[in-house]
Amino acid sequence: MAKTLPADSVGLVKPKILQVDQLLKLSSGGVLGKYELIYETYGQLNARKSNAILVCHALSSNHHAAGYHSLEDKKPGWWENFVGPGKPIDTNRFYVVCCNNLGGCSGSTGPSTLNPETGKPYGPDFPIVTVRDWVESHIHLSDALGIDQWAAVIGGSLGGMQVLQWSIDYPERLKHAVIIAAAPKLTAQNIAFNEVARQAIRTDPDFHEGHYYEHNTEPARGLRIARMLGHITYLSDDLMHEKFGRDLREGEISFDFNVEFQVESYLRYQADSFVGRFDANTYLLMTKALDYFDPAKPFGGDLSKALQRAKASFFVVSFTSDWRFAPARSREIVKALHDNDLHVSYAEISVNQGHDAFLMKIPQYVEVFNAYMDRIAGDIR
Amino acid sequence: MAKTLPADSVGLVKPKILQVDQLLKLSSGGVLGKYELIYETYGQLNARKSNAILVCHALSSNHHAAGYHSLEDKKPGWWENFVGPGKPIDTNRFYVVCCNNLGGCSGSTGPSTLNPETGKPYGPDFPIVTVRDWVESHIHLSDALGIDQWAAVIGGSLGGMQVLQWSIDYPERLKHAVIIAAAPKLTAQNIAFNEVARQAIRTDPDFHEGHYYEHNTEPARGLRIARMLGHITYLSDDLMHEKFGRDLREGEISFDFNVEFQVESYLRYQADSFVGRFDANTYLLMTKALDYFDPAKPFGGDLSKALQRAKASFFVVSFTSDWRFAPARSREIVKALHDNDLHVSYAEISVNQGHDAFLMKIPQYVEVFNAYMDRIAGDIR
Repeated sequence: MAKTLPADSVGLVKPKILQVDQLLKLSSGGVLGKYELIYETYGQLNARKSNAILVCHALSSNHHAAGYHSLEDKKPGWWENFVGPGKPIDTNRFYVVCCNNLGGCSGSTGPSTLNPETGKPYGPDFPIVTVRDWVESHIHLSDALGIDQWAAVIGGSLGGMQVLQWSIDYPERLKHAVIIAAAPKLTAQNIAFNEVARQAIRTDPDFHEGHYYEHNTEPARGLRIARMLGHITYLSDDLMHEKFGRDLREGEISFDFNVEFQVESYLRYQADSFVGRFDANTYLLMTKALDYFDPAKPFGGDLSKALQRAKASFFVVSFTSDWRFAPARSREIVKALHDNDLHVSYAEISVNQGHDAFLMKIPQYVEVFNAYMDRIAGDIR
Repeated sequence: MAKTLPADSVGLVKPKILQVDQLLKLSSGGVLGKYELIYETYGQLNARKSNAILVCHALSSNHHAAGYHSLEDKKPGWWENFVGPGKPIDTNRFYVVCCNNLGGCSGSTGPSTLNPETGKPYGPDFPIVTVRDWVESHIHLSDALGIDQWAAVIGGSLGGMQVLQWSIDYPERLKHAVIIAAAPKLTAQNIAFNEVARQAIRTDPDFHEGHYYEHNTEPARGLRIARMLGHITYLSDDLMHEKFGRDLREGEISFDFNVEFQVESYLRYQADSFVGRFDANTYLLMTKALDYFDPAKPFGGDLSKALQRAKASFFVVSFTSDWRFAPARSREIVKALHDNDLHVSYAEISVNQGHDAFLMKIPQYVEVFNAYMDRIAGDIR
């Protein structure tokens, strides 16, 4: 329990709710009427509203990017390492906004929200949302906050994909785009992992075709499998080796199906702690948003063409041991930006932490991030 | 339906059963009394019994390595590409034996066999078996067939691990060891994938702690997930890209949870066709045998020391795109063999087929395999 909060934290924060009454036309052809977005802000918006930074979150995170909700919180927000006073996304100079994406399960309208038309949770009737739809909802949020142009839109992993979409769809509304550990679209292998996770959830007898809320249950078994699998792809083989090797938990092989190797213990722990705090229908939606993401598709599959409209300056970061979205995928983005003579800084960080490195305080990463953020700060008028 | 069998096939084959009455002391400390091994043989054993080759199978295959069980069979044995007249493991010159490993589900004693003490299937009471235990059971089989020394013991993947163990435990009883697409032990990531598969099976409500036979059911959902996951690790990212890319099955995104991408269709097909033909308890046992495999462990983790006892000549093969057991893992074996001045030929085949390449008729692979088999044939007196 953190009775005293660290000095370099934004400290106690309180989420806010935005009620959106505008229609949201979805990529699927459907329409969402009223919806809510939960978000947090850190730092002060300046008079010109020119120091605002939008942080986009990844698959299983949410609007709580930094700080603490109470003095009893065991953990701060998911990007505490990067958002706060004196940190790369420095709340002494930037006004930082992070919202839980539509379809999420942390307060924004999603499958576990009551559908006003039925009085029951949306469940499987919640429409499939795409990265493009999220950007549209972010525009509603931007308008509500009176922010015409973000100093930067920043995100890692699925968050980075939102940044890329932002730069194409609303080129005038962001000055800088920071895309970390992302890819311009998933590979067949990426989709395959998502499909196994979905099948685990959807074939769980407690799934009830997505209507599990009404059965007072949840597809916990399937969600556990999905999470374990996710974690394998978030870490590199090297890091797993360094963290766990083939170490036995009890020192001796027990010849049974209890936890034997440390890596098994780690996975089961990650799985158990995910269930209860994350909604399975949201997990399904997020994996679909990943699968569908392909901003080049409306441009004949040509990412360079898609980015012809972009105007932002870009900062792209990848991690050498990331096998989920490998550096080669980031370089595809960089190439397409170069093709359009857009300004781009690219950093490939040599680390063994795998995909999850984007969350970690790695000196070389922090250094280049700080340097780029200084440039963003310098552009603020 | 193959009404006429291919000329280069061993043709119609019939499995045989070996009843073993000897005690089998297991690595776990337990003992197995009477047990049965189902096996097939192809070709003719010569008078000196010096042309015999033992083929060891991988996780989900069995004794049926080549030929057909009936004219109606849709598919031949699992290594039809390599076992038959004129093929690398040429049945015109070798007598080839392949048995279903103990704990299997294709006819050898395993979890689905009736336990003579209870009259019910062993289920979860079947002891955990290791690669070393399989080698011991292979010795029983060798003795029964009167084969004092195999011209070669050959295997891919988990089969290759058996070959490595064979060369250490019974150095006098094999002349050549052919180890394909294997590793001297699993990595933490390998174990992690196995653990997710096991968790999927063991948390399936139809698993009933392994006693599902008595409930007339099987943990089909879990086994499906395990198989899908397995297939992701058998193929390379590149091959998946080549095979499926991001191709949509119906041409258009449907914004639902039906099969959309070709890769999803492939995985679901593989999963569905596995259920019903493979036993979940056996799957659990096989993954445990993989996790535990570490022939260097009794030698302080030093593979070179473990191989001091080996006498065979070795042929080691790896595939560049195999990320399950990467070439670097094969090179660990080669290094330990070199440390002992053992004769070793090593081939690293440049292909994009991933781990499953060991089953495929890849020209460069077939060529080096043929060349090495010529040497084995030349050593036969």
